[in-house]
Amino acid sequence: MQNFVFHNPTKILFGKGTISGIGPETTVFSNKVLLVSGSGSIKKNGLHRQVTESLQNAGADIIEHPGVQSNPLLSHVRAGIKLARTHHCQVVCAVGGGSVIDEAKAICAGALVDHDVWDFFTGHKSISSALPLTTVLTLAASGSEMNCGMVITNVETSQKFGFADKFLFPRTSILDPEATFSVPADYTAYGAVDAIAHILEFYFTTADPSTPVQDRLMEGLIINAMESCDRVLADLHDYQGRADLMWTATLALNGLTGAGLGRTGFPMHMIEHSLSALYNVPHGAGLSAIIPGWMRHQSVITPGRFAQFAERVFDCRDGSVEERARMGITSLLNWFEKVHSPTSLQALHIPCQDIPRIAENALALAKVWSMSDYDIGRIQAILADC
Amino acid sequence: MQNFVFHNPTKILFGKGTISGIGPETTVFSNKVLLVSGSGSIKKNGLHRQVTESLQNAGADIIEHPGVQSNPLLSHVRAGIKLARTHHCQVVCAVGGGSVIDEAKAICAGALVDHDVWDFFTGHKSISSALPLTTVLTLAASGSEMNCGMVITNVETSQKFGFADKFLFPRTSILDPEATFSVPADYTAYGAVDAIAHILEFYFTTADPSTPVQDRLMEGLIINAMESCDRVLADLHDYQGRADLMWTATLALNGLTGAGLGRTGFPMHMIEHSLSALYNVPHGAGLSAIIPGWMRHQSVITPGRFAQFAERVFDCRDGSVEERARMGITSLLNWFEKVHSPTSLQALHIPCQDIPRIAENALALAKVWSMSDYDIGRIQAILADC
Repeated sequence: MQNFVFHNPTKILFGKGTISGIGPETTVFSNKVLLVSGSGSIKKNGLHRQVTESLQNAGADIIEHPGVQSNPLLSHVRAGIKLARTHHCQVVCAVGGGSVIDEAKAICAGALVDHDVWDFFTGHKSISSALPLTTVLTLAASGSEMNCGMVITNVETSQKFGFADKFLFPRTSILDPEATFSVPADYTAYGAVDAIAHILEFYFTTADPSTPVQDRLMEGLIINAMESCDRVLADLHDYQGRADLMWTATLALNGLTGAGLGRTGFPMHMIEHSLSALYNVPHGAGLSAIIPGWMRHQSVITPGRFAQFAERVFDCRDGSVEERARMGITSLLNWFEKVHSPTSLQALHIPCQDIPRIAENALALAKVWSMSDYDIGRIQAILADC
Repeated sequence: MQNFVFHNPTKILFGKGTISGIGPETTVFSNKVLLVSGSGSIKKNGLHRQVTESLQNAGADIIEHPGVQSNPLLSHVRAGIKLARTHHCQVVCAVGGGSVIDEAKAICAGALVDHDVWDFFTGHKSISSALPLTTVLTLAASGSEMNCGMVITNVETSQKFGFADKFLFPRTSILDPEATFSVPADYTAYGAVDAIAHILEFYFTTADPSTPVQDRLMEGLIINAMESCDRVLADLHDYQGRADLMWTATLALNGLTGAGLGRTGFPMHMIEHSLSALYNVPHGAGLSAIIPGWMRHQSVITPGRFAQFAERVFDCRDGSVEERARMGITSLLNWFEKVHSPTSLQALHIPCQDIPRIAENALALAKVWSMSDYDIGRIQAILADC
């Protein structure tokens, strides 16, 4: 195990009927609240009313910033920052999935500085403070509700860049599984894929050969993500399945899985971010198209790790290390197909002629993330196998 | 899954060479530091010098409160509170295992109130603030370094009582596996037993039939506790084994394993606390003497749960539910014997004539912990099987 610092101060209120807690959890910081939300589905399903009622009952003066897209846009972040400044908002409340929470984090950071918020993402500026953030989660996927990371897309430069800072942990996140009942089957599956991808990134890129505590935690979470997703796809209103999937996705990227692994990379996300930046495909769908190809490449380098994954996650006990490694990848691919998440670029209708362009875009992110072991040839080779 | 609140604000600095961080982490609160420690082993192994140097370099004015015993005593807590008040200490730094940290927590809570600190344990008073606490951990066992609980023994009343409050989370805990190199084999094993017991309490007392996320987390931690303990017992200076055992014990009782389980009990601890209160046996040794007997009783009530434990922790896949349940208990008992942790009252030299007295004492704690499903007859029956 490598040295690490673990500090996750986010408070989680989990379960049925917890949404009414958002008012007091938010106005404890200020009653000037910027309410950040998405495309309007929360108005249809009644969540918007629940949240605003709770905020108002707690004395909030609400300024609304709706319209966050999936793969949230820098231009919309800038508009949110302007709004927060104009109305002197002192706290931000995000109601939505990872995109809404990520945009809210960018607003929290950008509202307190004079320079452009994109400077954080390019590494030209660092964060020294941020507005406090509370969230009500509506999608089990990104883990953003209990971590300090965010990903924003700059359409001017076709860049989808991520950034993390300790000032960006939500103060309180409310996780009511019933708030995810209206998520359709495809996006439920993409969310589970996203959670699994977060774990796989750590699991397969650690250079430390001895991380048994983290390994068993990660293996258990992957099994839980698949089993709970299966349960939800059989009945979208299965409360226990929704609850298990929601908590699994949160734990998949709240810092615990990676603590002690030392330096890790995010190569699958690095490549996928190009897909969503260039084609606006759902993040989880892009991931499941990339994961099997990347795993096939990586398994040649660290077959023992893949054999352990196969044995512990899919109970593959027979055959050589290489055979088990392959069986693990195939088993995961079969599960992606079972939940109808795309497993190739072709399934996303992305022609192979585009590979050089995608690779070029991914390489720019590899540089920002200091992933020097990924050059253009390697990224192209992986994409050619996807 | 049941509703829960999870909020663990403790910052962990983990790994080699992290002890030098204790100074700045402590004096950020105040330079008037009460340094709480145990019986003097930290003076022999150099840790005391490391800690005081780091504190002094950070500008600390140190008041020493050494001499905390295992199963820390209320009288010694009271002396620490008096010392903290006399010298106007504004922060407490604990260097030791769970006993030292627990006593430090009691001092943090007691220093700020006029009434006796024991009133918190009997439920007559509640905590509304506490001095900030930092810790340097020297024993992988109790989890106190990342939770808000504490256990103190009142010899006047022969009571060993526990109490938890959100104000008692350490602000920062430093976990350097090398600081546990000098723990001898027997106490290393007792520490692993303690960590396993914390998990078993949750695992086998939850009334919720559907907690798959927590189950896999707990099962993985139990396996890790045993495997890392085995590794350390083969070589007390095995860094990776010490690191894995240390982080496992912390995660075993930092709130994650129990979050979502709903109401649970701590019956094995409830009974064991009587053993350490009456005979001053090491906590882990007392636990391994109680656990198999308690498990045999409980497995009749919830055999399916015990069969799952057997299957996932010990790979027992054959036989009926009842047979697998029994195999799981036997496997754990065999592991206790392998690491030379006592598995009966007899092994602790406690005569069966004492059972009524032990049960009487345990019943008092059962009342304080509101465990109404444990009457004197049930406790005696369990003890008779230990």
